[in-house]
Amino acid sequence: MAVKKPGGLAGIEAGSTAISTVGKDGRGLTYRGYSIEDLAEHGSFEETAYLLIRGKLPNIDELTSYRRKLADASVLPETLKRILELLPSDAHPMEVLQVGCTALGTMEPETAARTTADLADRLIALTGPMLLHWYHYHRGAARAEPPPAVDAAGADAQPSALVITADTDEDDPQADEQQTPAGVSASPTSASADPQDYDFDNYSVAGHFLYLLHGRHAERAAIRVFDVSLVLYAEHEFNASTFAARVTASTLSNYHSCIATGIGTLRGNLHGGANEAVMELITSFETPEEAEAGTRERLTAKQLIMGFGHRVYTVSDPRSDIIKKWSETLSLWAQDGQLYAISEAIEGVMRQEKGLFPNLDFYSASAYHFMGVPTPMFTPIFVISRITGWTAHIIEQRLNNRLIRPSAAYIGPDNQPWVDVHARF
Amino acid sequence: MAVKKPGGLAGIEAGSTAISTVGKDGRGLTYRGYSIEDLAEHGSFEETAYLLIRGKLPNIDELTSYRRKLADASVLPETLKRILELLPSDAHPMEVLQVGCTALGTMEPETAARTTADLADRLIALTGPMLLHWYHYHRGAARAEPPPAVDAAGADAQPSALVITADTDEDDPQADEQQTPAGVSASPTSASADPQDYDFDNYSVAGHFLYLLHGRHAERAAIRVFDVSLVLYAEHEFNASTFAARVTASTLSNYHSCIATGIGTLRGNLHGGANEAVMELITSFETPEEAEAGTRERLTAKQLIMGFGHRVYTVSDPRSDIIKKWSETLSLWAQDGQLYAISEAIEGVMRQEKGLFPNLDFYSASAYHFMGVPTPMFTPIFVISRITGWTAHIIEQRLNNRLIRPSAAYIGPDNQPWVDVHARF
Repeated sequence: MAVKKPGGLAGIEAGSTAISTVGKDGRGLTYRGYSIEDLAEHGSFEETAYLLIRGKLPNIDELTSYRRKLADASVLPETLKRILELLPSDAHPMEVLQVGCTALGTMEPETAARTTADLADRLIALTGPMLLHWYHYHRGAARAEPPPAVDAAGADAQPSALVITADTDEDDPQADEQQTPAGVSASPTSASADPQDYDFDNYSVAGHFLYLLHGRHAERAAIRVFDVSLVLYAEHEFNASTFAARVTASTLSNYHSCIATGIGTLRGNLHGGANEAVMELITSFETPEEAEAGTRERLTAKQLIMGFGHRVYTVSDPRSDIIKKWSETLSLWAQDGQLYAISEAIEGVMRQEKGLFPNLDFYSASAYHFMGVPTPMFTPIFVISRITGWTAHIIEQRLNNRLIRPSAAYIGPDNQPWVDVHARF
Repeated sequence: MAVKKPGGLAGIEAGSTAISTVGKDGRGLTYRGYSIEDLAEHGSFEETAYLLIRGKLPNIDELTSYRRKLADASVLPETLKRILELLPSDAHPMEVLQVGCTALGTMEPETAARTTADLADRLIALTGPMLLHWYHYHRGAARAEPPPAVDAAGADAQPSALVITADTDEDDPQADEQQTPAGVSASPTSASADPQDYDFDNYSVAGHFLYLLHGRHAERAAIRVFDVSLVLYAEHEFNASTFAARVTASTLSNYHSCIATGIGTLRGNLHGGANEAVMELITSFETPEEAEAGTRERLTAKQLIMGFGHRVYTVSDPRSDIIKKWSETLSLWAQDGQLYAISEAIEGVMRQEKGLFPNLDFYSASAYHFMGVPTPMFTPIFVISRITGWTAHIIEQRLNNRLIRPSAAYIGPDNQPWVDVHARF
């Protein structure tokens, strides 16, 4: 590994947290003590969100109510739709979310009756609908109408993105078993042509997003993998966006300002934007052989390869193993199976040449692609998930607040004498 | 002084900067080496903005071009007006600015041709017009029209705010001398009833703001003090909003996201929101005697008094001396002269009882009030000014970037065994 520049507060404890451990010896990644492996295998995103925001896993009644609450909260206010429609069609989706989040804050601010957890639930439920309303509006869907039933995501924005079309046989458990492991959501697999038809009784954040994106119910495998990705992306200690949100919270600013900080910080390529950068990389190759040669070339040219290594993890990213397995599973369904092999080829070169392991962003890229998600939506999906972690940290920061205000070493000019404007050169 | 809680990165160097010194021995507060005293006495906000963003003081030709550029940039795009109009009339003005800034970013993103400095200039010029368009729109002004000529700021939002109405005699230098020191802007003093009539040849950010607020040219003294306040608020090293903006920049996010982080972080009462909290305090008293007694009562009840002390300054805030003098000057013009005496009474108690000195926020409150600025605009005005410091830091962070990602001490639960949702309590 290359020697790192000092600075960036690397290794400096900026505070304490009870929310997660990242790469601690003997712990790995845990959310409030629960291992990421358990959460991803047995849990759902809604359970994870409840755990992070409310501090405990929900029982079955609490979980049912929580899903119902999120489903009810997923309806966009009309004024917010109008604001989103005024944003240009070529806006960056992360800025669309920032405008949406902040505008929502002006309409539904924090009050004694509307708790931080309520605000979080509303945003978790609305972030997908905000993004997809703006997306479909600019692609010809009538204003304030549900998304079109036709394949809106596919052809125009993302020519190479393939919606999963493989049939599953509901009556053949064997066939089902083979490709959709335990924990698959109970949403119907048959694609509906009527966008009004979303099954709110089986609401999940993952299923609803894919439904709004494609205008029909997604395959169960796609919903399951989307859900797992939300679990994996939910929380990660004092990462840059969470830390920035805590700085905002530390001045006693309002909830939506803290989240807007999170969104704006996540966007960068050295953070949430990395999964989009990975997609650009892997789709630049046609075959695994080309990918191997191309990656070596880039390394020789000292170009940065996104999706590898991590500030905190030193040996591996436990989330990568999980999402990699799922990316492989989806690759069997999708028509564009080469992308998985291309990803593996790049991983091989990076391990061999740089001793670097893939992080969560690397195989998330192909997984989302196999679900037919356009690349510019990768980081916004990260937002939906990370709202839970940000919220947990905002609440934690407020409970024992101290203004976060470091100092700086001065390396600038010495005292300068004043010169009148007419005497300056 | 009370013993401070540890944490909040207090005293920890999070990086280096060549932009400003805050309270360094023998230096005080300097922007790129120039003392705040020189800048506030001899300079203008436009010179300060140029210095911070471009690294040098402008000569007379550069300054003239720069004012012209800002004047041209002060016209709101129609779509942005429409978005601002959709925000509720009771929105928090800082959220209005966040929406406006982010929406502007979707319309005018950073490109090779549109530099960071260009984006900053546009925002400096537009922040006031954004706020005041939303403000007047919801107070009955016709959409997309200039602000009404009547006293929009006065009666309805802020019953006690007084627009300065004292006459000056242009032909009597003595009278002028008495109340408007050297460096007063050359804008006309006669209030114009026609809002179309703004004198763009004598554009200043300060004068334009007051013009848009009141619908007529402001008195020269008001423009001068507003301008000084913008100089004083422009930059302050690694304060919370600037540091948060640097964290956002460190992920390689876009310019407007960094500024949105700054705005959201500045809003809190422990940061930019303090000047509004001060105004609430000083207007809660009728006389200096009442203020003295009331302040002692609050201290006994361990209530926080805003506008005193500072994380970095230990003896005094050099900006406070400057703005205090100006607040006193304006108090002679305004009808509501008691507010200055009330402020002094509170300062006396705080020095005597707590050994604390006023910071910039304390006398800024009465100064803005004497100019007829409604209290909810105090922190937005801080934004207009601080955009310059934020921009300087964003540029500096990008020039030698490393992701800002600290670590945290874990104080949460031990590893938890997974329990099926149906078995949970």
